Amino acid sequence: MALVNDHFLKLPNNYLFSDVAKKVNAFKATHPKARVITLGIGDVTQPLCPAVVEAIHRAADELAQQSTFRGYGPEQGYDFLREAILKNDFLPRGIHLDMSEIFVNDGSKSDTGNIQELIRWDNSIGVTDPIYPVYIDSNVMIGRAGVMEEGRWSNVIYMPCTAENGFVPQIPERRVDVIYLCYPNNPTGMTLTKDELRHWVNYALHNDALIFFDAAYEAYIQDDRIPHSIYEIRGARKCAIEFHSYSKTAGFTGVRCGYTVVPKEVTAATLGGERISLNHLWLRRQSTKFNGTSYISQRAAEAVYTPEGKRQVRQTIDYYMQNAHKMLSALRALGCEVYGGEHAPYLWLKTPGGTGSWQFFEEMLYGAHVVCTPGVGFGPAGEGYVRLTAFGRHDETAEALQRLEKWMG
Amino acid sequence: MALVNDHFLKLPNNYLFSDVAKKVNAFKATHPKARVITLGIGDVTQPLCPAVVEAIHRAADELAQQSTFRGYGPEQGYDFLREAILKNDFLPRGIHLDMSEIFVNDGSKSDTGNIQELIRWDNSIGVTDPIYPVYIDSNVMIGRAGVMEEGRWSNVIYMPCTAENGFVPQIPERRVDVIYLCYPNNPTGMTLTKDELRHWVNYALHNDALIFFDAAYEAYIQDDRIPHSIYEIRGARKCAIEFHSYSKTAGFTGVRCGYTVVPKEVTAATLGGERISLNHLWLRRQSTKFNGTSYISQRAAEAVYTPEGKRQVRQTIDYYMQNAHKMLSALRALGCEVYGGEHAPYLWLKTPGGTGSWQFFEEMLYGAHVVCTPGVGFGPAGEGYVRLTAFGRHDETAEALQRLEKWMG
Repeated sequence: MALVNDHFLKLPNNYLFSDVAKKVNAFKATHPKARVITLGIGDVTQPLCPAVVEAIHRAADELAQQSTFRGYGPEQGYDFLREAILKNDFLPRGIHLDMSEIFVNDGSKSDTGNIQELIRWDNSIGVTDPIYPVYIDSNVMIGRAGVMEEGRWSNVIYMPCTAENGFVPQIPERRVDVIYLCYPNNPTGMTLTKDELRHWVNYALHNDALIFFDAAYEAYIQDDRIPHSIYEIRGARKCAIEFHSYSKTAGFTGVRCGYTVVPKEVTAATLGGERISLNHLWLRRQSTKFNGTSYISQRAAEAVYTPEGKRQVRQTIDYYMQNAHKMLSALRALGCEVYGGEHAPYLWLKTPGGTGSWQFFEEMLYGAHVVCTPGVGFGPAGEGYVRLTAFGRHDETAEALQRLEKWMG
Repeated sequence: MALVNDHFLKLPNNYLFSDVAKKVNAFKATHPKARVITLGIGDVTQPLCPAVVEAIHRAADELAQQSTFRGYGPEQGYDFLREAILKNDFLPRGIHLDMSEIFVNDGSKSDTGNIQELIRWDNSIGVTDPIYPVYIDSNVMIGRAGVMEEGRWSNVIYMPCTAENGFVPQIPERRVDVIYLCYPNNPTGMTLTKDELRHWVNYALHNDALIFFDAAYEAYIQDDRIPHSIYEIRGARKCAIEFHSYSKTAGFTGVRCGYTVVPKEVTAATLGGERISLNHLWLRRQSTKFNGTSYISQRAAEAVYTPEGKRQVRQTIDYYMQNAHKMLSALRALGCEVYGGEHAPYLWLKTPGGTGSWQFFEEMLYGAHVVCTPGVGFGPAGEGYVRLTAFGRHDETAEALQRLEKWMG
C-alpha cells in the first residue's frame, strides 16, 4: 500500500498570503466601491529594464536559428552568467570565488527550500523569528521540524528579533546545527553589522554548524559598511551557503533566475566523522533533480551586469527606496514606531497600543482600505507588528499614506 | 555538529553521461583530426519554431511596460497555459481534467525527481529496467532505495524489459507500492498497448499502489491506438500521476517548461488508514518550494498549441522521425537487432555477438567515430544494448549511418 509522507499533514492548513487574500476578497465583496491599495505582498511593480528586455529578444532570436540554437545548458548555469556574477557581485568586495561554487537557479525560493536535503533529518535548525516561512516549512515536510505545539515547532530553535533586542538575533542556549539568516531581513527590513554577523560566523565555526544565508535583498543596502554577502566575514566560506535572487534586484519575480553559492570549503560530517564537501553534494543534487535555468532567463540576468543594466536596475531600486523613505517619514510623523525601510524594501510597524497583528490588519483594511501583512504570520515574535512593502507605484503609495494619515492622525 | 545526509554518499560517483563525455574527450584528444558524430545524448538540435519565438518576443515586450508587467505568477502556472493543455492534450482523447489538476513546471526532470517527496520514506518502488536514472537516484537521496549491492539497489524492485519479454514489464512477485513507468520509453523507444498499460493500472488499483507515469515522448507516437496518456485507461485517475514535457515535443530543452498532472482522486493512505489527496499535497509542496515557471516560458508553451505552433512542431517531430526511420532501415539492413524508433526518438540496438555495452560503445567510437550511449548505464537489463537517438541533423545522421555501414558491413 502506498503510504503518504505524513510530515506534510503537520503543516497548518492556513497559509499567510492566502489568508490575507481571502480577507481582502471578503472586504471587496462587501465594499464593492472601495479602492483597496496593497502594501502587503512583496511583489515588484516596475517593468523589466530595457537592457534586460533587449537581452531576452536577442536570446529568442538565437534559439530561432539552427546555427545558434542551444538545448540543455549546464545544470549549474552558463559560464557567461557565472563569470558575470563573480566579477560583479563578489570581486569588488574582495571575495574570490570559483565558478564551480556558483549554481544558477530558477529563483532562490527553490534552493532555500531544497538545500535542507543535504543535511541529516535529525539536525536541529535555528531560525530568526519572525522569518520567511519557506525555511521552516521545507524542514517540516521532511520531518526535521518536529511537531507544532502552541504555534512553535518542537525541533526548531526560535531566535526572537524584536524592538527589545534591536532585531539582532542572540546565540541561543540550545545547540543549533543549521542556522537560517536573511539580511537585509524579510520581514523586518533590518540589517546586521559586520560585527553582528561575525558573531554568527564564529559560532558556526566553533560549533561545527552551518549557516544558510539569504541575501535576496542585498541590492537595497545604502551603506557599504553593511555586509552585502556573508563572505565579507572571514571564515564564512567554511560554514556558509548563500542565496541570491534577481527577483527584487531586477524585477525577475516572473522571469525566474537567481543563484546559490556553495563554497568548496563548506563541509558537514558523517556520523563516522568524515568531512563531506557540500559543493559536491549540491552539484549531485542539482544534476539529478534540476535541468538548468531557462537560457532566456540566464541571458536576461547577464544583462543586469552590463553598464546600462546596472544603471537601469539602480534606478528601479531607487524608485522603490523613495517609497520606503516617504513611508518611514509619514509613519514616524504619525507617531508610529516603525523599523526597517532604510536598506530594505520592507517596513516593520509596531501596532499602536499593542493591538494584535491580525486585528490591526483588519482595522487598516476597513479603516483605510490599505492592505498590510500581519507580522504574526512570520512567526510568534511577529505578533504586534505588521509588514509594509515599498514595492508599490509612487502614486498608489502616496495615496495609501494619505489615507493612513487621515485614518491614524 | 551539522551532519550530512549520508544517503547521498551511497550514489556511485560515476554518472552515465559524464562518463560518456570523458571517454569521448579522451578519444578526441588522441584523434584530433577525427570528426565525431554523436547519436548519444538526448538533446534536440532543431531551433524553436516561429510561433514560439514570436510568443517569447511578445512576452518580453509585455514585461517591458508598466501597464502589462507581471511579477509572481501562480505557483501552479497561468490559466492560459493550463486551459490550452486541457483543451489540446486531454479533451481530444476524451480525458476530462480540471485546471487544478495541472501543475506547470520548469521541465519534467524536476517533478519526476521531486514527486517522491509525497510518499513515506519506507514505501517500496518498482522500476522498469533499463530506466531513466533520475527515478532511482532521487529515491536514493532520501534513503528509500536502500543500499547498492552488485549493481542493484536493495529496496528497488527491477522489472526487466528485454527482447526476451518484448520489452513489456511483468508484474513482479514482490509487492510494489510505487511504480515508475515511462512510455514511449526512454531508453528503449518501445511502447505499451492499451491492454498492457491497463494491466498495470489494474495492479495499482487492486494493490493500492501508485503509478508515476512519464509521458515525455508521447508526441512521437505515430499510431493512435497507442496510449498518449495513462488517463486513457479507466481508473488511472485514481492511481496515477503523469509527467509531460515540452523539451522533446517543441525543443524546449533550453527554454524549460513542462507540466505534471495530479488528479484529485489520486490518494495515498496514512498509517491510520486515512486517505489523503496527493493533489492537495503537491500543491502545498509546489507553493512552498517552487515559485512558478518563467512567464516567458509559459507564453512560449502556450504558442505550441496555436494552429501554426501545432503545424510547426509537427514538422520538427517529423524531421526527427525521418532520422529514426532511416536509422532503423540501415541498421536492419546491416543485420542488426534493433528496437524502438517507430513511436519514439530512441533506438535500442542489441550489440552483435553479445558484446558488453561499454565495449561496443568504445568499438563504435574508435571504429566509426560515432557516439552511442551504453545500455547498461540505464540499468542491469540494459547490458548488451546501446541507445541511439534520432535528434541529430539529417546530414550528420546520414553520415553516421554511412560510417556504421562501412564499419559493420
